[in-house]
Amino acid sequence: MTILIRGGTVVSATGASPVDVLIDGERIVALLEPGSTALGADLAGSAERVIDATGKYVIPGGVDVHTHMELPFGGTAASDTFESGTTAAAWGGTTTIIDFAVQRSGERVQDGLADWHGKASGNCAIDYGFHMIVGGVDDDSLKAMDELSEHEGITSFKLFMAYPGVFYSDDGQILRAMQKAQGNGSMIMMHAENGIAIDVLVAQALARGETDPRFHSLTRPVEMEEEATHRAIMLAKVAECPLYIVHMSAREAVEAVARAQQAGANVFGETCPQYLYLSLEEHLSAPGFEGAKYVCSTPLRSRDDGHQRDLWRFLRTNDLSVVSTDHCPFCFKEQKELGVGDFSKIPNGIGSVEHRMDLLYQGVVTGEITLSRWVEVCATTPARMFGLYPQKGVIAPGSDADIVVYDPNGKTTISVETHHMNMDHSAYEGTVVDGKVATVLSRGSVVVDDDAFTGTKGHGRYLKRGLSQYLR
Amino acid sequence: MTILIRGGTVVSATGASPVDVLIDGERIVALLEPGSTALGADLAGSAERVIDATGKYVIPGGVDVHTHMELPFGGTAASDTFESGTTAAAWGGTTTIIDFAVQRSGERVQDGLADWHGKASGNCAIDYGFHMIVGGVDDDSLKAMDELSEHEGITSFKLFMAYPGVFYSDDGQILRAMQKAQGNGSMIMMHAENGIAIDVLVAQALARGETDPRFHSLTRPVEMEEEATHRAIMLAKVAECPLYIVHMSAREAVEAVARAQQAGANVFGETCPQYLYLSLEEHLSAPGFEGAKYVCSTPLRSRDDGHQRDLWRFLRTNDLSVVSTDHCPFCFKEQKELGVGDFSKIPNGIGSVEHRMDLLYQGVVTGEITLSRWVEVCATTPARMFGLYPQKGVIAPGSDADIVVYDPNGKTTISVETHHMNMDHSAYEGTVVDGKVATVLSRGSVVVDDDAFTGTKGHGRYLKRGLSQYLR
Amino acid sequence: MTILIRGGTVVSATGASPVDVLIDGERIVALLEPGSTALGADLAGSAERVIDATGKYVIPGGVDVHTHMELPFGGTAASDTFESGTTAAAWGGTTTIIDFAVQRSGERVQDGLADWHGKASGNCAIDYGFHMIVGGVDDDSLKAMDELSEHEGITSFKLFMAYPGVFYSDDGQILRAMQKAQGNGSMIMMHAENGIAIDVLVAQALARGETDPRFHSLTRPVEMEEEATHRAIMLAKVAECPLYIVHMSAREAVEAVARAQQAGANVFGETCPQYLYLSLEEHLSAPGFEGAKYVCSTPLRSRDDGHQRDLWRFLRTNDLSVVSTDHCPFCFKEQKELGVGDFSKIPNGIGSVEHRMDLLYQGVVTGEITLSRWVEVCATTPARMFGLYPQKGVIAPGSDADIVVYDPNGKTTISVETHHMNMDHSAYEGTVVDGKVATVLSRGSVVVDDDAFTGTKGHGRYLKRGLSQYLR
Amino acid sequence: MTILIRGGTVVSATGASPVDVLIDGERIVALLEPGSTALGADLAGSAERVIDATGKYVIPGGVDVHTHMELPFGGTAASDTFESGTTAAAWGGTTTIIDFAVQRSGERVQDGLADWHGKASGNCAIDYGFHMIVGGVDDDSLKAMDELSEHEGITSFKLFMAYPGVFYSDDGQILRAMQKAQGNGSMIMMHAENGIAIDVLVAQALARGETDPRFHSLTRPVEMEEEATHRAIMLAKVAECPLYIVHMSAREAVEAVARAQQAGANVFGETCPQYLYLSLEEHLSAPGFEGAKYVCSTPLRSRDDGHQRDLWRFLRTNDLSVVSTDHCPFCFKEQKELGVGDFSKIPNGIGSVEHRMDLLYQGVVTGEITLSRWVEVCATTPARMFGLYPQKGVIAPGSDADIVVYDPNGKTTISVETHHMNMDHSAYEGTVVDGKVATVLSRGSVVVDDDAFTGTKGHGRYLKRGLSQYLR
Repeated sequence: MTILIRGGTVVSATGASPVDVLIDGERIVALLEPGSTALGADLAGSAERVIDATGKYVIPGGVDVHTHMELPFGGTAASDTFESGTTAAAWGGTTTIIDFAVQRSGERVQDGLADWHGKASGNCAIDYGFHMIVGGVDDDSLKAMDELSEHEGITSFKLFMAYPGVFYSDDGQILRAMQKAQGNGSMIMMHAENGIAIDVLVAQALARGETDPRFHSLTRPVEMEEEATHRAIMLAKVAECPLYIVHMSAREAVEAVARAQQAGANVFGETCPQYLYLSLEEHLSAPGFEGAKYVCSTPLRSRDDGHQRDLWRFLRTNDLSVVSTDHCPFCFKEQKELGVGDFSKIPNGIGSVEHRMDLLYQGVVTGEITLSRWVEVCATTPARMFGLYPQKGVIAPGSDADIVVYDPNGKTTISVETHHMNMDHSAYEGTVVDGKVATVLSRGSVVVDDDAFTGTKGHGRYLKRGLSQYLR
Repeated sequence: MTILIRGGTVVSATGASPVDVLIDGERIVALLEPGSTALGADLAGSAERVIDATGKYVIPGGVDVHTHMELPFGGTAASDTFESGTTAAAWGGTTTIIDFAVQRSGERVQDGLADWHGKASGNCAIDYGFHMIVGGVDDDSLKAMDELSEHEGITSFKLFMAYPGVFYSDDGQILRAMQKAQGNGSMIMMHAENGIAIDVLVAQALARGETDPRFHSLTRPVEMEEEATHRAIMLAKVAECPLYIVHMSAREAVEAVARAQQAGANVFGETCPQYLYLSLEEHLSAPGFEGAKYVCSTPLRSRDDGHQRDLWRFLRTNDLSVVSTDHCPFCFKEQKELGVGDFSKIPNGIGSVEHRMDLLYQGVVTGEITLSRWVEVCATTPARMFGLYPQKGVIAPGSDADIVVYDPNGKTTISVETHHMNMDHSAYEGTVVDGKVATVLSRGSVVVDDDAFTGTKGHGRYLKRGLSQYLR
Repeated sequence: MTILIRGGTVVSATGASPVDVLIDGERIVALLEPGSTALGADLAGSAERVIDATGKYVIPGGVDVHTHMELPFGGTAASDTFESGTTAAAWGGTTTIIDFAVQRSGERVQDGLADWHGKASGNCAIDYGFHMIVGGVDDDSLKAMDELSEHEGITSFKLFMAYPGVFYSDDGQILRAMQKAQGNGSMIMMHAENGIAIDVLVAQALARGETDPRFHSLTRPVEMEEEATHRAIMLAKVAECPLYIVHMSAREAVEAVARAQQAGANVFGETCPQYLYLSLEEHLSAPGFEGAKYVCSTPLRSRDDGHQRDLWRFLRTNDLSVVSTDHCPFCFKEQKELGVGDFSKIPNGIGSVEHRMDLLYQGVVTGEITLSRWVEVCATTPARMFGLYPQKGVIAPGSDADIVVYDPNGKTTISVETHHMNMDHSAYEGTVVDGKVATVLSRGSVVVDDDAFTGTKGHGRYLKRGLSQYLR
Repeated sequence: MTILIRGGTVVSATGASPVDVLIDGERIVALLEPGSTALGADLAGSAERVIDATGKYVIPGGVDVHTHMELPFGGTAASDTFESGTTAAAWGGTTTIIDFAVQRSGERVQDGLADWHGKASGNCAIDYGFHMIVGGVDDDSLKAMDELSEHEGITSFKLFMAYPGVFYSDDGQILRAMQKAQGNGSMIMMHAENGIAIDVLVAQALARGETDPRFHSLTRPVEMEEEATHRAIMLAKVAECPLYIVHMSAREAVEAVARAQQAGANVFGETCPQYLYLSLEEHLSAPGFEGAKYVCSTPLRSRDDGHQRDLWRFLRTNDLSVVSTDHCPFCFKEQKELGVGDFSKIPNGIGSVEHRMDLLYQGVVTGEITLSRWVEVCATTPARMFGLYPQKGVIAPGSDADIVVYDPNGKTTISVETHHMNMDHSAYEGTVVDGKVATVLSRGSVVVDDDAFTGTKGHGRYLKRGLSQYLR
């Protein structure tokens, strides 16, 4: 089938211009100057379907490189399945996710990967890839890193400096995994918090009776993110491997990334919508147990200390390269409630895979970032960073027809009443934002249009990724 | 006429992919997936001309935002006319220049502009725009800044902290011009060297009998560029205007730009090929009067101090945003020779408008920058920075068909024997570089092909520019 | 006459211990362990006078290296004569001042110096030295710098980047003076504000009808102090001379000093009590014309922006080395009132030569600085910085007996009712501070004791200073 | 007995002046202006002994706060006993050491301390104190920290980020110990190297057959010192405790200390003579197994990378506060030789307790530091830093008569032939330095004079120390 998206303004990472987009089957086959007659035929007439994008932006589908569907955590599991999660993503204009397959300690890497393929295969509404969490660095898992990188399309491996006893790697393990990444060209992703020290602070807080959700943030101070970020950078410098720090929330940690970048290192930072909008004072400290909705790690930071303002600045200056969601949804009932009386038992995570594109577009509306930068941090750079470009992340001939028609004059209300994620609450309940996803195409199929989901479970395919194309 | 560029790899600022480019008249009308049959007709058959770009890169034509054709300087004038200079530019894959119109002290801004239009009009082989040098900031010239910005397509104004008595503005004049730029949205460009202090050092050196060309650099120490750069940044912060520092050669000066950027300021830096390749030790200190060929300001720096290495790094990290040439050619005979026995009388300038694309491509070959970054710093960012995007700087439907087919397997020898600039020497004499400009199109016309110039004097049109699209 | 100061705690720049101090004539001749019988005789019995310092601190007399007695400024003159000013200084525990002799533009340096000797000679209650303001750098004044340094005991020369048309030197003049300082080992002192740009801002403010005193600060933004500080540092780096920035009030400017210091440069910063305690919001913005009392340059800064807090920090970290007063008193009536309706006509200056020791001791009381640091920044370092050590600034055998017995349990009320400066108001009116000057000795003479002035006009002698002893 | 040191120049941390020093018994009882008759009697006549210091410096005895006498390490033990080590110290003008008592893992802190008292008591030629190495942080040892601080005069506790399985503490243990230090006011000392990562590098090097001594440095890269230093600073910031980083050798690590200091933190750095003079290229890479003599941790760094030059700069700027020796001597025969074929088995340590004062005085001779700074970093600051001031570290009435008469015109040859340490080699073999220890007094007793040791084993007393007096 051929589809012509006509009349819109195509936005790329470098600018915007009026361009018509012709799709044939799963791919974009042509970009056309509107009204040009050079190609002879009346293209609109010949296309099997015409989407009128007049007055709208035509952007590459969002690429969310940090999701956790069905992740077992703290005795429960993230509440979105690959089906519900990818459907919600599509609703919100995200057409690619990269989820984290997990090697648990004591398990083979390959078995963890097989497990994740089992969860995702045949269930996704949009295309998906995997990073691999290496939960137990040893000779076997190091060998597996080569295998996954060469044969399985998994070119990024996540390690944890947090969560001792669960995903935690010590500095020797980290160094060895980084050396392996140096060898095969893959990217190391890092959860950078000093979990060993944080565990002491958590135990001390609980012993003092400080059990409310806000203590989750107070026991994970900025210094523990800054420290781990710096440590990861130093280890990566020794190993000479590229490094990507996930879900950064503290200004001082991003400054460490910025210093490394300016020195020429391939060190990159990601933040998430929650760190740009939500805060310790306003959300995590909500009365009663309400704050539990906002428990995630790294934690929400103090608004008064200016972290939000500075994270937006870092997005402008490219000291932060990517915005992902770290989508890790848990219901309030029965899940978040596991931590009543003990914040350390609250499952960590906020679900927003559906709202990233809208929430970041607010930054365009309020002048925090430019239109091009919106597309860059939400689609183009994530795709380049993780070896999916130009298949994903750009509107270009030959690229997958993953396209969002975005209406800057629409309005979107974020609410548990209307969202499609499997969550009984929303971290942004009642927020009305400017802009609205009008139409979403995934590999040439219209999956969302006119406020209806028209996609199908199983449409989404597994993406074998190449090496990062974003290195300097 | 329709032209199809077929079989090549289109390179953009974000990546590369196989794309065919269809041109109709002066503009690009379509980007096409190679081999797609979605558009029905055999496009190759229907196009009036087909250019085979197999095995070659297809890139937006170079945008050189810093040239000085026919500039009167030091009792002589730059040796390239707009005709010879733009022809040489075309030979080298540059399809747009922005030259500096000059208001001399005591002259009206509008008269200076008219003078430049007179020199350029009808003589250029490629499109051209103008920045305006404001050589005498006063109430009249400030008013003229508004007029030029609103009506004349001149949205960038250059000031000098160097050259007292010639182009120099004092800090009060600079501040007032910056405030004006803040008001009308235009960009302030700055030659950032402390000319007042440098004049003292020059006089002292001459008094000591230090007259050789290398003293040109030794009397313009790094600190005097660093100082002026910092001062310009501070004044721009007070005025809240965007600032672009031209021809940066000193690491410490770029570090000042980098700090301002990281703080979120719209401060940008440009460097030039000479600072990436030539040095005080190897070139400016050549025996006899040979060093005069390499006299330009800011001066060539010490290779031993690592400036070249660091400038490449700054290009990678985007602390430097643009590479232009500061093309300001003078012949050795009679021109450079004005400074025999007194380096301060050597006309300042190096001519390289013809070689920028090739010289920077060497950085791709040697791994200093990526292929995309080459296109970004030589074409896309310059166009965005100075309000020419997407007309220039990108291969997209609707954009001017300014395109270079670049052969990575070719070789280019740089020499006075072969170059097309009006110079009796070359700063890169005998250098053989990898890569070669195969075909150049300017607004849909093939102007260079198969080692022949096929363009015409007067083809180039004046470009009325909009405001910068590169601000944060 | 011999005097024994007994029972007190002698405080030095490195610590404190119980020590008795024996004075013979004008000098300290012995420091003694209390109660030691090693010297045989009953020293207390043999001393002609015994001062009981039990429970009190015994510190070197304060050294205030920045005063302006009788300075002509803005059509009037600083209201303290050398007699009244040095008497007030003595009351406040300061036993040495270094005042600024002035070469006005068009005047010979030597004549300016002679003029100052004329004002001071025979009139001072305490010892005094001179820095020389070089108001017109030219061949003659440069030669004079050598002469003063070698023969007149003047080893520090002040230049102004502010006040165009009055004291202002351009960057070429500054560079030449700095080169001279490099040659003869003297210190360059700098008023670091960009006066050229500030004059533009002032004229614009007045044109907008912004005439109130607070606009004095708003037209001298932080960036203009930061800029000039950085520029001075760069020029000093080229000249390789030591540099001392006077009366620093902006955090960002001190940070420039700190960076230079850490790079190993002999660059130093001074602040004054007014910048530690007074602010734009609380004082300069006082209703009506009250703010005029607080007009000084550099100006008071915003308390909300945290400059005060950071200046205290810089004192702790030695990024600021000295606290002086910049004592430049003007009466409100007839003097400050010259600027009613035009803040730019308000004579610049605050008088506090009498209160520096008390005001800084508050920093000890509130924990901002240690007791030793109080002595260091108020006496020891100033003396070392300007070539007076160990004659001044330390309690040691052979040093001048300039000593303050300071009562930490006393109280001092600062008020126009009680102060001894020739001013009709006080910037600290009604402030009650902990601590009190009990007894002051100047070269062995008790000049203040038991709330009475017992010194004499003319006791103070001119100090020929050596080169700085504080360079690295 | 009374002793008069007459005719010398007393040097303090702030300057130098001609002062006579009178000693009665163990303490200094008076400082006297030479030639003053104010005290009546002919002091020289009345003193029982007169030491003529004409033409010499009179300085406080050196305070070496980092020694390891008799330390068990790597299957052997440091070769100096408290007797031989303190005798050698005295020879070299050091009159106080602070040695490290050791709690081994599994041992009670108090038992480790008792063990060290057993080794030292009755054996020392000069006064000595102890820091406590806490080798196993747990509830018991934390409690012991309070006890030692309050009752035993031990106010500083050393932790190791290096040596996993030996002295290593994890970040949680470190944090807990730091919190304890915050509570009782004591100082945390840190061996800052990432031992976990280093162990991986060491194992990999050995597996590659890289067994020579120089690999000791190559497997402990700069980044691993920089990282651990930063981590320690972050943990101390969370705990709000003072921190002292021992034996720093890497520029980048000191820069981390400098940044923390400038932010106002009580973070301090120490370096040692070996890092100022010896290098990877010149010493550790010596042919054969010679390099083993230079194996210490942190390791010697690359001279080419400029660490030595920068460490001297940091001494000038006070970014480094103290120079100690980290005296940890091992003989080449049988001890260093344990590591033939495996650098990781070479006992870590260089012995120089005898030469610190001479080696640092070379920095005065060559202009790296001033005379006052020599005294400050070798005596005054160490004493203040570790709670010994003014008993030690200063020449003042009431202070212990620990005094060195130093002859700037003498020469000292460093050699195994002449030194008094129990070592069969010298890291500085054959070096001839300017300056010479002429006479040394320890608590009023002449222990070295005229090239003879006149002290006695057991003269040295244990020093109960107070809290640091160097905090901001």
